[in-house]
Amino acid sequence: MPHFIIEYSANLESQVDMTALCRAVLKAALATGVFEIGAVRVRAIKCEHYAIADDKPENAFIDASVRGAKRRTPEQKKAVGEAVMAAMASLVEPLFKDQNFALSVEVRDIDPDLSWRRNSLHERLREPAA
Amino acid sequence: MPHFIIEYSANLESQVDMTALCRAVLKAALATGVFEIGAVRVRAIKCEHYAIADDKPENAFIDASVRGAKRRTPEQKKAVGEAVMAAMASLVEPLFKDQNFALSVEVRDIDPDLSWRRNSLHERLREPAA
Amino acid sequence: MPHFIIEYSANLESQVDMTALCRAVLKAALATGVFEIGAVRVRAIKCEHYAIADDKPENAFIDASVRGAKRRTPEQKKAVGEAVMAAMASLVEPLFKDQNFALSVEVRDIDPDLSWRRNSLHERLREPAA
Repeated sequence: MPHFIIEYSANLESQVDMTALCRAVLKAALATGVFEIGAVRVRAIKCEHYAIADDKPENAFIDASVRGAKRRTPEQKKAVGEAVMAAMASLVEPLFKDQNFALSVEVRDIDPDLSWRRNSLHERLREPAA
Repeated sequence: MPHFIIEYSANLESQVDMTALCRAVLKAALATGVFEIGAVRVRAIKCEHYAIADDKPENAFIDASVRGAKRRTPEQKKAVGEAVMAAMASLVEPLFKDQNFALSVEVRDIDPDLSWRRNSLHERLREPAA
Repeated sequence: MPHFIIEYSANLESQVDMTALCRAVLKAALATGVFEIGAVRVRAIKCEHYAIADDKPENAFIDASVRGAKRRTPEQKKAVGEAVMAAMASLVEPLFKDQNFALSVEVRDIDPDLSWRRNSLHERLREPAA
C-alpha cells in the first residue's frame, strides 16, 4: 500500500506523457507525508476500447483509483485525493478546453485483515546505503 | 461517475467487437435514465494473460465493474446492473453455446467524500449548441 | 465469482511468465477448496506506465486483487489470500533479492444483491463428459 491505478482512454496516448503523469502522482503522494516512499506504486492502464458520453471520437478520460490503508484518518485520505487530483489536473490542463475530457479520483480503503504484502523496496529505502 | 470497466480475456479480441460492446453498455446505461450523458465513461481492458476454470485455451470471460454514486437507490443500482448485463449478453450470446464462457457484472459505490472530479463534457453537453 | 486480477509493471514482462503466474494462482485458489472450478477467473494486466517508490527504472510490482462472494467466512477469505500470496511469492522469489520489488494481495467482497452472472463453464464442468 498504497496503490494508485490510473485508467485512461487510448486516444490520450499521443497527447499525454503517461509516465510523466505517474511520476507527478508519485511526487504528489509523497509530498502529503502520509506514505512511506517504498510503499507507493503508481501505474497507468491504457483502455484501447471505450465509449464516453455522446461517443464523439475525441471524448477522453483519466480516472485514478487510490487504494490505501483503512487506518488513515479521513483528513489524510482527503489530502491524498486532493493532491492527486491537483497534480493530474495541472499536467493535463489543456485537455479541458475542448470540452471533451473528464478527470476523476477515488480513494478507497484496504482492509488490513484481508491484505498481504512483501516488499523488498523497504529494505533498501529504509536504510541508507553504506 | 459513473465508470463502467470491462475486463476480458484476450482470446475474445478476434470474436467480439469490444468497441461495439462499450457502445452497447453506454447506450444501455443511458437508457436507464439514471445518469447524465456527460458522466458516463465505459472502457474495456484486454487481459493478455489469464487462467480460467479448467484452463482450456478457449475458456474466456467478460467481467464488468460499475462504479457509481452511493446516493443512488438500490432499485437504481439494480436497474443499471441488469441493463448492463442484458446489453452485453445480447451482444455475445453465441459465446455461451460452447460452454467455455462466463459473463459477469458487479455494481459498487463511490464514496462522495472520497472522490473528486472535473468534467468538461458537462459544459458541452448540458448546453445545446447555439 | 471469484475474480483474481493481477496488475504488474511492464518491466517484469521479460522476467516473469505471467501466464504461468495466472496458472499458479488458479491452482492455489482451487486447492483451498473454497471455489467451484468453473467460477475461477484469473487474469493479469500489464501496466505500461508506472512510477514506483524512488522511481528507479528497475523498481517493479505485482499486485493481486481478489473479488469473491461476501458469504465466505473470514477464515475462507484469509485462506484464499494467503494461498494466492504464497503461490505468487514462490514463483517470483528471485525478484526480492535486489530490493526493487513489492508483492501484494487484497481480498474484497462482492455484494450478492449487486452482482449478476451467467456462466456456461459450469454447465460443462459440473457434468462429467458422457
